[in-house]
Amino acid sequence: MTVLAARGFVASGIASGIKPDGALDLALVATESSLAVPVGATFTSNLLAAAPVQVCRAHLAATGGRAAAVVLNSGCANAATGAEGRGAAELTSELAARALGVRPEDVLVCSTGTIGTRLAVERIEASLPMLAGKLGLSPESSAEAARAILTTDTVTKEVIVEADGFVVGGMAKGAAMLSPNMATMLAVLTTDASAPQHVLQAALSEAVQSSFNTMTVDGCTSTNDSVIVLASGLAGEVAARALAEALTAACAELALQMVADAEGGTKVVRVTVVGAADDDSARRAGRRVAESNLVKSSWFGEDPNWGRIVSELGSAGSAFHPDRVSVAYGSVTVCRDGVGVDHDEEALAKLVAGREFEIVCDLGLGAGSATMISADLTPAYVELNMGRS
Amino acid sequence: MTVLAARGFVASGIASGIKPDGALDLALVATESSLAVPVGATFTSNLLAAAPVQVCRAHLAATGGRAAAVVLNSGCANAATGAEGRGAAELTSELAARALGVRPEDVLVCSTGTIGTRLAVERIEASLPMLAGKLGLSPESSAEAARAILTTDTVTKEVIVEADGFVVGGMAKGAAMLSPNMATMLAVLTTDASAPQHVLQAALSEAVQSSFNTMTVDGCTSTNDSVIVLASGLAGEVAARALAEALTAACAELALQMVADAEGGTKVVRVTVVGAADDDSARRAGRRVAESNLVKSSWFGEDPNWGRIVSELGSAGSAFHPDRVSVAYGSVTVCRDGVGVDHDEEALAKLVAGREFEIVCDLGLGAGSATMISADLTPAYVELNMGRS
Repeated sequence: MTVLAARGFVASGIASGIKPDGALDLALVATESSLAVPVGATFTSNLLAAAPVQVCRAHLAATGGRAAAVVLNSGCANAATGAEGRGAAELTSELAARALGVRPEDVLVCSTGTIGTRLAVERIEASLPMLAGKLGLSPESSAEAARAILTTDTVTKEVIVEADGFVVGGMAKGAAMLSPNMATMLAVLTTDASAPQHVLQAALSEAVQSSFNTMTVDGCTSTNDSVIVLASGLAGEVAARALAEALTAACAELALQMVADAEGGTKVVRVTVVGAADDDSARRAGRRVAESNLVKSSWFGEDPNWGRIVSELGSAGSAFHPDRVSVAYGSVTVCRDGVGVDHDEEALAKLVAGREFEIVCDLGLGAGSATMISADLTPAYVELNMGRS
Repeated sequence: MTVLAARGFVASGIASGIKPDGALDLALVATESSLAVPVGATFTSNLLAAAPVQVCRAHLAATGGRAAAVVLNSGCANAATGAEGRGAAELTSELAARALGVRPEDVLVCSTGTIGTRLAVERIEASLPMLAGKLGLSPESSAEAARAILTTDTVTKEVIVEADGFVVGGMAKGAAMLSPNMATMLAVLTTDASAPQHVLQAALSEAVQSSFNTMTVDGCTSTNDSVIVLASGLAGEVAARALAEALTAACAELALQMVADAEGGTKVVRVTVVGAADDDSARRAGRRVAESNLVKSSWFGEDPNWGRIVSELGSAGSAFHPDRVSVAYGSVTVCRDGVGVDHDEEALAKLVAGREFEIVCDLGLGAGSATMISADLTPAYVELNMGRS
């Protein structure tokens, strides 16, 4: 049920023809009441924000952070499409508003797919009445919506978090931060918790910081990244802390599902940096390791090449002392105080042969720490992304 | 003759056994007179500076920027090796000094190979007398020295620049900024120009900034990067500008040879950013594009995917306006004012199928410009770097 696990929401998915292969490509998530409810949202930091991101920002500014529905299409990012693209995103929200009997500014829009190609908004226009008519509460409705937002993803990403007295559910897509004919991570979450908009926004921002913002597949920041949570309020008021924790748990689970489905990926690796001068330094160092092509190639080859890791730590732009750094794969320490140490090579080989493992880098300088989740770099990643767009 | 093209230098190369396959792995470049001459040098910005880099810095500080010889080994980076590694680098310079009849601080040392493994300095000790005895002026001497510094390189990198009244020659190695069992770019240049040390250093710094610092294979900054120029002075005094221009031409040619031999690479692509707010912004934007795995995969696939390029420009951290950006492959403009434009698809397909091409990104904001030289990302790069170290 995922995105419909929280009370007060309906969803649907349909094949509008934007994807030439006839796969599901248009999703709608709406409040059951058609009333606008508090919304939290975060969007890409890319200055080339796609048209739907621009429209979402304008609508949320106009409504003070409320919405009644989200329309999502896959197969086209509607990014780098200029004024025509912005018009197409606005028209999408107007068409959905008409079908639902709400105001256009109460509808948010998300797109994912190729950058620089025109959105076939006429297909959305032709399909929206049926999409709205199919809105439902069933597991099938939820599953169709989750499938309709996928691009190169091989599986849907869905989550339910049952908190004390309320529920958070969600669906997401993303097989790379930016990907071949895709260009996005999108996530729509729903909750039946009741919370003022500013509390919901703060809870989501905190959740995104420690979940989606800690994952990396290829270091590329999409033009369309959008995370949206709608709160129906049907479960009554909840503590702000409980809401933040439930959203964090939901976002972290969706982020993990994305990295596990990374394009061409065969491994999920947690890179934890401890002992950094501060948390920011730790994040910078962890990101440098987690995005290094040489380190990521070694993961694919199951080669515990710690020399590449310390080299990346030394060039990350964070405080670093060569004689204080230690590196461990799981519980196997391979480098201590900057030099290699004898270790159980059999245990290490077994560890890096696993589907998931953790690397802990101790900079030996302070109390800063951070964790990044990443995937390996494989020939399949290149092959998936070399194709003509 | 390359590194021996300028008068006043001798060189040699030998197989010391550091490389288990018996390939050449130890090189020596020295002044013919055994006198210390002015030296310009630049080293890695990685805070995990390898032992030989630490020793070079100390020696140049002690001598005020003079040296009589450079010893270079391949097969081991002598990085992340602690106090023992520093001792091995110092011992190498002492052994060479003894063989040449100079002071240890007059000898510079460079290493390239795997990070974190012990340097077999006993092999260098056993081989140095023969290496010094082989020092010569012949093309064979020059060629052996150039071969002895290679790791995963498939060809030597050599250059001669004949300036007005003086010569700059050089050799280099590097198939990635940081590479599998390699971890370095090294370059040794010689000139017979006479110049005060501070003029030589300024000329080299200028040359490196516009050559080696504009190339990228994988965005990884090695622990061992070293560029060293020795000036014998035998051609007499030269203008500072002429020296800087000759060194720049030599370094640019060596950098191009490195990118052309990039690990797994099949393309050499110039990414030029113009119209940026300033040159720094242009460099940041160019580097972002030139290091993007998605952009580099598209080069391998000969797919002119400009959407990925504008997305990277938008997330580079430089000033950017979505409605002002234009992108051209060679003379074929594919995006103008932020949106795709009709173009000659046949000409474009032919262009990206070539071994070398240029991409020009115009940000439409100011007069800042920069060019980066990069290679494509290929399955072969991953395969070369996945192997157990």
